[in-house]
Amino acid sequence: LARAALTLYAEQGFEQTTAAEIARAAGLTERTFFRHFADKREVLFYGTDAVRDLMMRAVADAPRTAGAMDTVGLVLRSVGTVIQEGGDLARVRAAVVSATPELRERELVKLAEFAEAMAGALRARGVAGPAASLAAETGLAVYKVAFARWASEPGQSEFPLVLQECLAELRDVLAGRQPSPA
Amino acid sequence: LARAALTLYAEQGFEQTTAAEIARAAGLTERTFFRHFADKREVLFYGTDAVRDLMMRAVADAPRTAGAMDTVGLVLRSVGTVIQEGGDLARVRAAVVSATPELRERELVKLAEFAEAMAGALRARGVAGPAASLAAETGLAVYKVAFARWASEPGQSEFPLVLQECLAELRDVLAGRQPSPA
Repeated sequence: LARAALTLYAEQGFEQTTAAEIARAAGLTERTFFRHFADKREVLFYGTDAVRDLMMRAVADAPRTAGAMDTVGLVLRSVGTVIQEGGDLARVRAAVVSATPELRERELVKLAEFAEAMAGALRARGVAGPAASLAAETGLAVYKVAFARWASEPGQSEFPLVLQECLAELRDVLAGRQPSPA
Repeated sequence: LARAALTLYAEQGFEQTTAAEIARAAGLTERTFFRHFADKREVLFYGTDAVRDLMMRAVADAPRTAGAMDTVGLVLRSVGTVIQEGGDLARVRAAVVSATPELRERELVKLAEFAEAMAGALRARGVAGPAASLAAETGLAVYKVAFARWASEPGQSEFPLVLQECLAELRDVLAGRQPSPA
């Protein structure tokens, strides 16, 4: 159902696609669609809870000795692996989201909530408040930049690797070093 | 007009306040209100263009030798100074914005646009694409965390100083150093 929706959104536009069409494309009834999703927007965000759970698990699994930013790095690797395994799903989804202002707004809200959840999880590990927020918000910044790079060069590189490169590059940028060519 | 609106939003809530009430509190007619603002939401975002101009000017004024993150630091100082000069305006505004989901969304969109504008300005200075985006997005992260800290302790410290402290702390966090107590 989700893949049928994504394909239609990408082909004919999010606004132009109806729940009935999605259901038909998936060989199901409209009623079945609405048993799974509150509306057609929901299809693009149903994975949010799973990603948040994944992030929280990655924080919990990080070694006790890992610093705030290393923990965030482990979270990024974990999320990056799942996205990479989804093939072109995340890329297609991102293209649909970025084409519609309403969806872009919702995506920004989701990402901000992720950062808050991550900061909370870091504080729960004993990281001081400001350091926890800084590490979490910065992790989000790295995610955004890495995703844009990965999505712009399909099939070129693994997403977890691009995330790692971006994090290393940010360390260079903050240390005032010339970033190494990626 | 803007101050009258902020006061009413803070006192009785954004949803509950009408344009007519704001105009009355400022000793003006409702028609005058709508000559200045498209709607009552606009009152909270009319400074957006001025802040963007300020950011662009700070980037243009940065010394040629300044690295990407140092340039972002100068932008933060410039924006921080203006916000500090506004006294409690920014704090009251932030409280109103954070109390209403629709306004929070618009604020996130505005901040994301700021990051894009800043990344563009850095690229125009010759900073490589990923480094420009990383520095800009990270500057935004620092801004968010610093603002929350500054807003939570009214009158305690100057906003440009809190911004500088947060940037220094982020450098520590990324270098894996224990952050110095703020």
